[in-house]
Amino acid sequence: MKLSAGVEWAVHCCVVLSQAARPVPAARLADLHGVSRSYLAKHLQALAKAEIVRPVEGRDGGYVLTRPAAEISVHDVVRAVDGPEPAFRCTEIRQQGELAAPPEQCRTPCGVARVMADAERAWRRSLAGTSIADLAAGFDTSRITELVGDVPGGAAAG
Amino acid sequence: MKLSAGVEWAVHCCVVLSQAARPVPAARLADLHGVSRSYLAKHLQALAKAEIVRPVEGRDGGYVLTRPAAEISVHDVVRAVDGPEPAFRCTEIRQQGELAAPPEQCRTPCGVARVMADAERAWRRSLAGTSIADLAAGFDTSRITELVGDVPGGAAAG
Repeated sequence: MKLSAGVEWAVHCCVVLSQAARPVPAARLADLHGVSRSYLAKHLQALAKAEIVRPVEGRDGGYVLTRPAAEISVHDVVRAVDGPEPAFRCTEIRQQGELAAPPEQCRTPCGVARVMADAERAWRRSLAGTSIADLAAGFDTSRITELVGDVPGGAAAG
Repeated sequence: MKLSAGVEWAVHCCVVLSQAARPVPAARLADLHGVSRSYLAKHLQALAKAEIVRPVEGRDGGYVLTRPAAEISVHDVVRAVDGPEPAFRCTEIRQQGELAAPPEQCRTPCGVARVMADAERAWRRSLAGTSIADLAAGFDTSRITELVGDVPGGAAAG
């Protein structure tokens, strides 16, 4: 099981945006974190599609959060970047091969799929229990504010 | 996030082995589930390496569980097949780029990594709460017993 590397970047970007007094350009977010501009742009687009961030056009454009950081959970960000697909995909093995169960015995999900889904729910619930605001409280946000207040004017969003 | 497809196969095989009166050859396990023999062999080897199953050599050889099914959790099987690596790999973004925090502020794990690790623990704990015996109770085990009692003699293990 492996989460997209973009999850880490996206969460850190949201923490920065939660402290920013103005829109932060994508390129600036990449430089602040020392990550690839093109790769990060893709993840910011995923965050925008999920309506977690929004690009602001114009001279002082960049990305902003769409709502207070206390209302954005880590799960929201993970789901936006990593996708909503379940980690476990049941291929209905119970209906294959010599042991194949008849369709009438397969109207409810397979027990294996249920156990996997329960575990994934526990994972999602745990991630949903922490907000970007909670995370920001653990970072040296004065440093973020100092640097993000330094956004050069004229940089384009996205 | 995506789990290896072999996880589903391996769990179903363990359920079958929990009902088998004798060793079940790898090829037979593949045919019972309608899955690739060569691909399943790899997963059975992973289960053997994790000491969940054990090959029995000889004329009536095959795989057996190493301990009662009630003592094998779904998590044991998932970990054996999917590996013990965490789904989230922290790359210490907090120490990169313009926002890089000084090493003395990074002696404990990053808050992002902590949230991810907590969620993964919740996932693993949930999987650990169900045993192969629990799962078998939800299957039509009479059908398994019927077919697994039919293992042809002389098939080799593994």
